[in-house]
Amino acid sequence: MIKVNNDYTSIRINAQRLWNSLIEMAEIGATASGGCNRQTLTDEDKVSRDRFVQNCEQASCSIKVDQMGNIFARRAGRNNDLPPVIAGSHLDTQPTGGKFDGAYGVLAGLEVIKTLNDYGIETDLPIEVVTWTNEEGARFSPAMIGSGVWSGNFELDFAYSRSDKQGKIFGEELEHIAYRGEVAAKAKPITAAFELHIEQGPILETEGLQIGVVSGVQGISWYDLILQGQASHAGPTPMQARRDPFVGLTKIIDRLYELIAQHAPWARVTFGDIKAEPGTRNTVPEQLILSVDIRHPEQSILDDLDTAFRKIVSEESEKVRLTGIIKDEWKAPAVSFDKDCISSVKQAAEQLKYNYKEMFSGAGHDSVYVSQVVSTSMIFIPCKNGLSHNEAEYASPEDIEAGCNVLLHAMLNRAMD
Amino acid sequence: MIKVNNDYTSIRINAQRLWNSLIEMAEIGATASGGCNRQTLTDEDKVSRDRFVQNCEQASCSIKVDQMGNIFARRAGRNNDLPPVIAGSHLDTQPTGGKFDGAYGVLAGLEVIKTLNDYGIETDLPIEVVTWTNEEGARFSPAMIGSGVWSGNFELDFAYSRSDKQGKIFGEELEHIAYRGEVAAKAKPITAAFELHIEQGPILETEGLQIGVVSGVQGISWYDLILQGQASHAGPTPMQARRDPFVGLTKIIDRLYELIAQHAPWARVTFGDIKAEPGTRNTVPEQLILSVDIRHPEQSILDDLDTAFRKIVSEESEKVRLTGIIKDEWKAPAVSFDKDCISSVKQAAEQLKYNYKEMFSGAGHDSVYVSQVVSTSMIFIPCKNGLSHNEAEYASPEDIEAGCNVLLHAMLNRAMD
Repeated sequence: MIKVNNDYTSIRINAQRLWNSLIEMAEIGATASGGCNRQTLTDEDKVSRDRFVQNCEQASCSIKVDQMGNIFARRAGRNNDLPPVIAGSHLDTQPTGGKFDGAYGVLAGLEVIKTLNDYGIETDLPIEVVTWTNEEGARFSPAMIGSGVWSGNFELDFAYSRSDKQGKIFGEELEHIAYRGEVAAKAKPITAAFELHIEQGPILETEGLQIGVVSGVQGISWYDLILQGQASHAGPTPMQARRDPFVGLTKIIDRLYELIAQHAPWARVTFGDIKAEPGTRNTVPEQLILSVDIRHPEQSILDDLDTAFRKIVSEESEKVRLTGIIKDEWKAPAVSFDKDCISSVKQAAEQLKYNYKEMFSGAGHDSVYVSQVVSTSMIFIPCKNGLSHNEAEYASPEDIEAGCNVLLHAMLNRAMD
Repeated sequence: MIKVNNDYTSIRINAQRLWNSLIEMAEIGATASGGCNRQTLTDEDKVSRDRFVQNCEQASCSIKVDQMGNIFARRAGRNNDLPPVIAGSHLDTQPTGGKFDGAYGVLAGLEVIKTLNDYGIETDLPIEVVTWTNEEGARFSPAMIGSGVWSGNFELDFAYSRSDKQGKIFGEELEHIAYRGEVAAKAKPITAAFELHIEQGPILETEGLQIGVVSGVQGISWYDLILQGQASHAGPTPMQARRDPFVGLTKIIDRLYELIAQHAPWARVTFGDIKAEPGTRNTVPEQLILSVDIRHPEQSILDDLDTAFRKIVSEESEKVRLTGIIKDEWKAPAVSFDKDCISSVKQAAEQLKYNYKEMFSGAGHDSVYVSQVVSTSMIFIPCKNGLSHNEAEYASPEDIEAGCNVLLHAMLNRAMD
């Protein structure tokens, strides 16, 4: 092995190789519109996992698969008793997802290992790249359940018993694709964890920056709002005689948008899905079920938003003779990442002379759970028009390269004694 | 035959006999929850038709079955060259239908004939009672196809070729139950047609009235409104950067409710179904698809509402950078019933001292098609809680009796020279 006098500042990843690996991965579950449909524990997910494992083995990594199907590929270091430095993200996508969300972080981790191989660098600490199972939560709810079980947020049995819309069971599907591993899905000592990801928002692009040094993640609250009225015939039932859930729905949504505007620019509300029951054209719905996603980087404000949301639903439902029920689906508290990990990323960006800013993540990531048990931070790069969870998702080769170089140097910073 | 000095005002139907005939008919296809499942051209439909024909023959009627399986039972009059006065409705039900929707109108027509027999009254014009095939449209689409072919709205071959969800063919099923008749399914001269029906709405019950003098049927316009924005991630995308279809949706719905309120009490708007795409919790929807059902009894106002709807969608979509697309799904023009038929019903209600109001039907009926070729009107009675297309459908014996007495006297009014 070559040793570069402990000065690794001139080392760079192989940008073309990384780009090619992203394009090859995107062929698995490729959609007609240029995106990816590689939902968790599907045949496509299996193919992508097999490819990843094979590529890691070619890079001389040893592979461990845990009970949740989380895959850890390890490049040995000089002292293998020390906890590793890891890079990780996910390979699953939304049903109409893009090429970069998740896959970038995983393949960039592997590219770091390949680069270290190229240069023959032996790190003091072992290096690992991990892909977490079911980050997206599109097929099985909740999202991030792989890192969620690993970090002790969910029981393994709970995860195994989740079912998708077709009634297929998580545990059985994991078995079916042969990624139900033996290793306990339980946090182990790790020196530092990094996750490189596209921003999934427009801030870096708008401000002309290449790197986001992510200091924390917005807290997220997921609810189902059920508005119950009374089913009645669209023709004979006078408007005043109706208990029409749509009458309350519009008021509640509008008041929520106003509430969130009062906490600009970091508060967010999203209504991602809605269902009418019975859902026939000529019947006033018996009930509407609306998904509500509220986010803020400060936990105290997120708590205030929760209270205000409940008040709005209660007031507006009562006004129009509806029953408003709020079901708490999931909560992820606001997260502050590890100061040392944040500095390692900032130092790498400065050393490599990329323009950057410190920022929050608006989206949840596996790093939210991982950071509960391990020193963690994230690196963002811009994505075109801020688009993500969209087949048109795009990041430029230059930014893909920059992010991976920052990951490389942040990891080296921690993996060299 | 007894002749009562041309004064028939004291004649009344036999309420107990009518009620019994309804209860007996409801045994055919009776459901566990007290409703009826007697879908068109099923074995149950055949049994109900056989029963009806047998009872008509016992009442000395002659039977004719046309090519659509519409059954006409005729009680001869003094002058059988004159076009008859008819009463008709349907014997088929929804899969979870009630005892009264349809069957009431048919059996009340037969009760009128039995009453005339009891009193030995010879009418000048012949009297007929008809049951139309497949009013409900629950098994074979479209609804009201029996009266639809008869009135020239559909071709016979079109009707014969309709298939149900199991792939069974209308023409074959009609043959199978032995009700594919020889008589042309084509309108013939008729002096006046009446249809007695439960209201299927809450108006008469709420206002404490026994009789609805139905002057027409609301026109119906069915649309799909597609609101297209841009899918983006719920977390990282700032609120101002979004093109969120829900932002336009609430404004459009609220303005439509306002528009409809300006045309109270008869205008109606119903949003029966809604779908978000891609419909995942943490993605701003790419698009929302909302079903819109607009009704009004006056065609010119319905046309104005159509224009206003398009304007609202266009204005509100543009304001918030959405694309609003309106797909026309189906239109049934507003119907005004025959003035003379309406007066015959009103006169009967007054003479019998029932409290009544003139009203529109919000639902479609065979009379919509029949009225295109023959002088027609309808009579409504209240139904409990306005419920219909529901196993809990109920009408009281008193109202059942009142409606049939009005039918009797409206028919006598037209059948006596």
